[in-house]
Amino acid sequence: MIPTITAFANSPDRGKGQARDMRVRWALEEVGQPYDVRLVSFAEMKQPAHLALHPFGQIPTYEDGDLALFESGAIVLHLAERHAGLLPDDANARSRAIAWMFAALSTLERPIVELGMAMLFERDRSWYAERLPMLRDRVRTRLGELSRRLGGADWLDGGFSAGDLMMVTVLRRLHTSGLLDEYPDLAAYVVRGESRPAFRRAFDAQLAVFTAASRS
Amino acid sequence: MIPTITAFANSPDRGKGQARDMRVRWALEEVGQPYDVRLVSFAEMKQPAHLALHPFGQIPTYEDGDLALFESGAIVLHLAERHAGLLPDDANARSRAIAWMFAALSTLERPIVELGMAMLFERDRSWYAERLPMLRDRVRTRLGELSRRLGGADWLDGGFSAGDLMMVTVLRRLHTSGLLDEYPDLAAYVVRGESRPAFRRAFDAQLAVFTAASRS
Repeated sequence: MIPTITAFANSPDRGKGQARDMRVRWALEEVGQPYDVRLVSFAEMKQPAHLALHPFGQIPTYEDGDLALFESGAIVLHLAERHAGLLPDDANARSRAIAWMFAALSTLERPIVELGMAMLFERDRSWYAERLPMLRDRVRTRLGELSRRLGGADWLDGGFSAGDLMMVTVLRRLHTSGLLDEYPDLAAYVVRGESRPAFRRAFDAQLAVFTAASRS
Repeated sequence: MIPTITAFANSPDRGKGQARDMRVRWALEEVGQPYDVRLVSFAEMKQPAHLALHPFGQIPTYEDGDLALFESGAIVLHLAERHAGLLPDDANARSRAIAWMFAALSTLERPIVELGMAMLFERDRSWYAERLPMLRDRVRTRLGELSRRLGGADWLDGGFSAGDLMMVTVLRRLHTSGLLDEYPDLAAYVVRGESRPAFRRAFDAQLAVFTAASRS
């Protein structure tokens, strides 16, 4: 049985791999699990058939036999628990890797998405120019703390884990902000993740959707 | 060995149980695991000793023998995996309960915290009155979707789980906004969570820290 994930039929990032299916594709590639993709339009995402899979009408979802899951973090963790390669064997190290997954989503992604939302939706509002530096400083605070903890290591806690996978995909959302360039060690950390063969395969697969859509 | 968690020495919510140690206390009470609490001041949270436990200088942390964890979601999941009572036995139901934990933190808490941050830190800014309705509408979108999925059930997916525990604590952060009153089923869901004996014990324990601090 090959699991099926959903992804944007027309990704708003035009194939830069910043949509959340990228995390799930990358995890599937890391563990060597083949998968099918069902593309959904923005209209379809808010229809009953998709809402039955994802209560908040988003992507990605994950279907495998009787199981339907939503939330990229939950899907990646589900895969990591059932295949070798994304979580360490040692029980304590495993719990710490999962803590980094939550940190990526709760502590880093929150200010990064807030900045991204402002750049997307509030650029023409009267307050944008005054508010932007505050949002950028909030992200800088977290990046500084993350950089200090990374401390020159290759990965957050020992070998590459699902925690790094989530963190790299969250940090990649900063590319248009220029903020990552202020932290060369974090920029190198992201490149390290992007250089993994599984990342490349996942990236190429999501890009192929966009280039195919552009041609049609 | 009794685990030790950290909590605010002077919680900014004045004992309303909205700080993130509440989630961990509640989970510990649900599974019947005694624990110790170490209170930390805001200054101590940014010192090296605490940063070694929590890279982002926050609470709660969790220490149990050789293991040190941070991120409330990771700590609750760690407890739920090692004790009965917070995750179903069925493998698929277990993965779905974990998906609700991620949904609470990634999809609900993000707009709720964004609204809360604005109410706390941007109330005297020129844009506050104009921006507030937008933030409240973002929260309403998620509450409407959550209400539709709950569909009159007691809990999000079968029996009470760690997913409900996280969701109830996230929704409790809306109390001062008045938004929960617009969704009577969600308000009742929160009350259902707050009525659990384990919640009451956890709430009383965190309140006792504040009332003790007020007297000193």
